[in-house]
Amino acid sequence: MLTISNRGLQMPSSPIRKLVPFAEAAKKKGVKVYHLNIGQPDIETPKQCLDAVRHSDFKVLEYSHSAGNESYRKKLVEYYKRVGINVTADQIIITTGGSEAILFGFMACMDAGDEVIIPEPFYANYNGFAVQAGINVVPITSSIETGFALPPIEDFEKSITSKTKAIVICNPNNPTGYLYSKDEMETLKQIIKKYNLYLFADEAYREFCYADEHTSAMHLTDVEDNIVLMDTISKRYSACGGRIGAFVTKNQNLLNATMKFAQARLSPPSFAQILGEAAVDLPDNYFDTAKAEYKLRRDVIVSRLNKMKGVFCPNPGGAFYAMAKLPIDDSDKFCQWLLEEFNYNNQTVMLAPATGFYGTVGLGKQEVRLAYVLNTDAINNAMDCLEKALEVYPGRL
Amino acid sequence: MLTISNRGLQMPSSPIRKLVPFAEAAKKKGVKVYHLNIGQPDIETPKQCLDAVRHSDFKVLEYSHSAGNESYRKKLVEYYKRVGINVTADQIIITTGGSEAILFGFMACMDAGDEVIIPEPFYANYNGFAVQAGINVVPITSSIETGFALPPIEDFEKSITSKTKAIVICNPNNPTGYLYSKDEMETLKQIIKKYNLYLFADEAYREFCYADEHTSAMHLTDVEDNIVLMDTISKRYSACGGRIGAFVTKNQNLLNATMKFAQARLSPPSFAQILGEAAVDLPDNYFDTAKAEYKLRRDVIVSRLNKMKGVFCPNPGGAFYAMAKLPIDDSDKFCQWLLEEFNYNNQTVMLAPATGFYGTVGLGKQEVRLAYVLNTDAINNAMDCLEKALEVYPGRL
Repeated sequence: MLTISNRGLQMPSSPIRKLVPFAEAAKKKGVKVYHLNIGQPDIETPKQCLDAVRHSDFKVLEYSHSAGNESYRKKLVEYYKRVGINVTADQIIITTGGSEAILFGFMACMDAGDEVIIPEPFYANYNGFAVQAGINVVPITSSIETGFALPPIEDFEKSITSKTKAIVICNPNNPTGYLYSKDEMETLKQIIKKYNLYLFADEAYREFCYADEHTSAMHLTDVEDNIVLMDTISKRYSACGGRIGAFVTKNQNLLNATMKFAQARLSPPSFAQILGEAAVDLPDNYFDTAKAEYKLRRDVIVSRLNKMKGVFCPNPGGAFYAMAKLPIDDSDKFCQWLLEEFNYNNQTVMLAPATGFYGTVGLGKQEVRLAYVLNTDAINNAMDCLEKALEVYPGRL
Repeated sequence: MLTISNRGLQMPSSPIRKLVPFAEAAKKKGVKVYHLNIGQPDIETPKQCLDAVRHSDFKVLEYSHSAGNESYRKKLVEYYKRVGINVTADQIIITTGGSEAILFGFMACMDAGDEVIIPEPFYANYNGFAVQAGINVVPITSSIETGFALPPIEDFEKSITSKTKAIVICNPNNPTGYLYSKDEMETLKQIIKKYNLYLFADEAYREFCYADEHTSAMHLTDVEDNIVLMDTISKRYSACGGRIGAFVTKNQNLLNATMKFAQARLSPPSFAQILGEAAVDLPDNYFDTAKAEYKLRRDVIVSRLNKMKGVFCPNPGGAFYAMAKLPIDDSDKFCQWLLEEFNYNNQTVMLAPATGFYGTVGLGKQEVRLAYVLNTDAINNAMDCLEKALEVYPGRL
């Protein structure tokens, strides 16, 4: 039978990208759209990283090692040491983006029907990787009132079954910007130790913490075999299109299994491995500049949002996302309305409805995610639009 | 429980790469190893393609569209037209290598427990993608005596069950080099039409046909919805490390489903899309040179093999692989012995045991795959080694 698989039917459409046709229609009408909907940073990719690719002089674009170039993995060992993570080159498998690291982890650790616990709201594509692996996502709700802090340990324990194999955290968090504290990380350690679970730590935004220090899952001692770091250079060096990430663990059995997945797809992309290798040699102050810029933007957007009537936006500790609670009936409707029916001085703003980030149906209807990936002038213009929009939106509560 | 999934345990190790430690040990002893074991071409990547990347001048390495850059997809439409394939840019999803196109096809069309029929010997990584998708590979044996021609239609019909969803072919074939004739393609068309199956056509080696014309699955009329082309630029332009392939079909439902998998992993690598786009503008005679070189190598290797006592090597019609039947007890043992215990004038040869290319256990024990990816001098030296080796191998039959 010429059918689509159940998995193909169940695969979620990207909640972020489904509004794209409405944005395109708005632009066709001559409306300027401020894109606060996606995590594509506008920060320039460091020139010396791009130059490393542009000045490369090989003659044959060969497959790399399935685990990635050894020279790159050795270089990454230096990088990780600088952020307090002690690993060897053999404990790193270079992946095609952080995406592939997540998929490898799901596939190598879990079978169809197994369960993974994820605090919600969470990065929507975890759902897609779960469907591909045939596993079930069990969400635990965190709340905007606490700024999306880690849910209480009881919530985890209530959700653990014989099928539970892992917990996923994204720290600092996409979509909330929340940065887990050292204490919260210790809480997670207790849970994974007690129930012998994997902790999959997506630390794509590690470098972007604005007040407190980042506690990596790899800093947790005594649970080394439980921890998998799912990493990426996409946000760190504004190199999203390179598609270079890393699967890092000290668990040798898991490394052996994951290498077989890596071998099946032959190798990660060669060009951007060169870029990633060069990035490790960026000057120590590289992140200072990018971080200062993001912090400035965060301060502007959070302050603007909290000044709007009926709006609440907790101050995110990291990443470049903020979640805001708006006085609206339905965030999906509102975000579409912003593109389809609203403009202010021929300008509007594109936001991500938070419904797509919750596993529990019905949550997120009053929330939106804003990615502060534009400069402060653009952010201020976008906030002007949002403020006016909230005044006239027919579904205002 | 901190366990490896069944899928992780079942994932096959790469049969081609498992001999690598023995090759490394041989090299450490000072033995020169001729690598006829892997399909990494030595042909230079076209300079103008590498230059397109090296001269690119963007400032931010952004995500591309999840389906790949529109400019690249439009360009590919021109390329496909030249090889008699009429598709639109919307019918192409750019993938991370041909590997991802295969995985997407398996995932979007089949659920756990479904079956795919593949003539054996076949590209070993199909097994890995099948394990990831939870589907079962049903092999149909083709024989070295017929040069690995398509098995008779009865063999397919006997293997079709209610679980059968697709047939995979690789044409011209890796590992056999066999080029399916127009008649054989018509036979496949009858089968997929009669049983309403997908035909997944891996045409990575399309350009390398040495006598007859290539018949693409996309040339078959009246079964457009059944056909998925799984393509790659890896071999075509000697650009394996770029990790750029394509998933091509006229089946709109399948495109819609597959786009969701593409969105989950965000985008294919950006750099090599630039390379692929430039490649479409290579001069018309580009493939003539590469093809003439491969044909020369094929003629040398096949002739050398057939002159060896007890050796039979059918003349492959395409790709850059030859399968040879050797008078040996066990191809795995023999290939390891070549690296571990044998040398001739301090040289030896690395081959791929054919056992890894068969789904049926026990087949391929007298067969090896030779990739003619080295120049004719190296091939002649490698054949000198093989000839001597067969004279002294203790397991000679």
